[in-house]
Amino acid sequence: MTQVSRAGMLREGKAKILYETSDPACLIQYFKDDATAFNAQKKGTIAKKGVMNNAISSWIFEYLGRNGVPTHFLGKLSEREMLVKRVTIIPVEVVVRNRAAGSITKRLGIPKGRVFQPELVEYFFKSDELGDPPIGEGHIFYFKWATPEELQEMVRLSLKVNSLLKAVFAEAELDLVDFKLEFGKNGQGRVVLADEFTPDGCRLWKTGTQESMDKDRFRQDLGGVEEAYQEVCRRLESKLGGKS
Amino acid sequence: MTQVSRAGMLREGKAKILYETSDPACLIQYFKDDATAFNAQKKGTIAKKGVMNNAISSWIFEYLGRNGVPTHFLGKLSEREMLVKRVTIIPVEVVVRNRAAGSITKRLGIPKGRVFQPELVEYFFKSDELGDPPIGEGHIFYFKWATPEELQEMVRLSLKVNSLLKAVFAEAELDLVDFKLEFGKNGQGRVVLADEFTPDGCRLWKTGTQESMDKDRFRQDLGGVEEAYQEVCRRLESKLGGKS
Repeated sequence: MTQVSRAGMLREGKAKILYETSDPACLIQYFKDDATAFNAQKKGTIAKKGVMNNAISSWIFEYLGRNGVPTHFLGKLSEREMLVKRVTIIPVEVVVRNRAAGSITKRLGIPKGRVFQPELVEYFFKSDELGDPPIGEGHIFYFKWATPEELQEMVRLSLKVNSLLKAVFAEAELDLVDFKLEFGKNGQGRVVLADEFTPDGCRLWKTGTQESMDKDRFRQDLGGVEEAYQEVCRRLESKLGGKS
Repeated sequence: MTQVSRAGMLREGKAKILYETSDPACLIQYFKDDATAFNAQKKGTIAKKGVMNNAISSWIFEYLGRNGVPTHFLGKLSEREMLVKRVTIIPVEVVVRNRAAGSITKRLGIPKGRVFQPELVEYFFKSDELGDPPIGEGHIFYFKWATPEELQEMVRLSLKVNSLLKAVFAEAELDLVDFKLEFGKNGQGRVVLADEFTPDGCRLWKTGTQESMDKDRFRQDLGGVEEAYQEVCRRLESKLGGKS
């Protein structure tokens, strides 16, 4: 891995900070313990979340990269830091749902737990200010947030991520209920997976149950939040940890 | 026009009642004075709205039909009654926007009055219970609310309606800001325009101003609600009234 040193802060988000580095093509992604929910109306911290999310995301990105999904991941630098390629983030969040949970149960009136076979893909406009509103392909093309070719590639990669990670989590005795992905374009205009993959942005249920092992424990005040993240971390390490 | 008599009530909506008739292929659409806004959280009545909306919708459907847009309209029966073909309503509302106003200004943070050139098309799931949530093409096909061919035809007709009615309203010195359409399938599976076209479901601004001549006067307590509907009625009658 390139030797890089941390320079000025580029952007602070709800759960991460992006820093520039001595290499203009690389950024450092720093994982905080801050947790927010319901468009930041609920705020708190989850002890060591940053450490666990950096570990989980690193294992997953490394695994996805090894299996043909291009990502911005370059390597884990420290407990809370990940080195990533600088990309231009596409302001469209892709949500893949294997089962109904969360916003879709209220928005479209679908009972929690309903299986989506094949998976359902939804799009949201990435905007903290607007609360990430649901959008359609029409909006994406009209406002030029992504081209049809870019969106097609985002969906192709999202379905591949789903297929790969459903299997990984199943081995770890977790059902991958849904997840949110963000993509960026690199210098060559190639679409790559960016941001993170952590229990902050996906739902994991203990296999065969609806017992949440993700940020829903924080959203719904279920208790045992740190323990759930630790457990996911522990189970993933045994599946993916040895290989990265 | 077929001689039909009114039979049992089929369905009561917020602004209209649908009755069955002696002819199973025909329904009577009765226009009420009831007005609702913000998903029926605000309720009231607009004097004679039913009479005005039946007149406006009849002129417009007749005009659209004459210009190649198939509709469910068969004829105006009385002040508040319209005879329509029985169709199976497709639960997807198509909204066409020539300028930004209403929900999109908050949902996507677009300043009121921004011109959409070409027009922006949005989809909403027709559900009073869920408050007509925004949806994308993906939802429409996934949940089989319409086939790709049906949606394509709905969009083609919506754009044609926009082109025809922008011109009609411009002659009446009104800017057609946006409108919502509903479609149905007839017995032969053909997509036809259904429901209504009235100031309840479109925005009209006096040309060159942002002065509302539509249900926004009710939504926003601007006063002069009846007068605005009457004025739209009067102006449309002089353009379309002689021909129906």
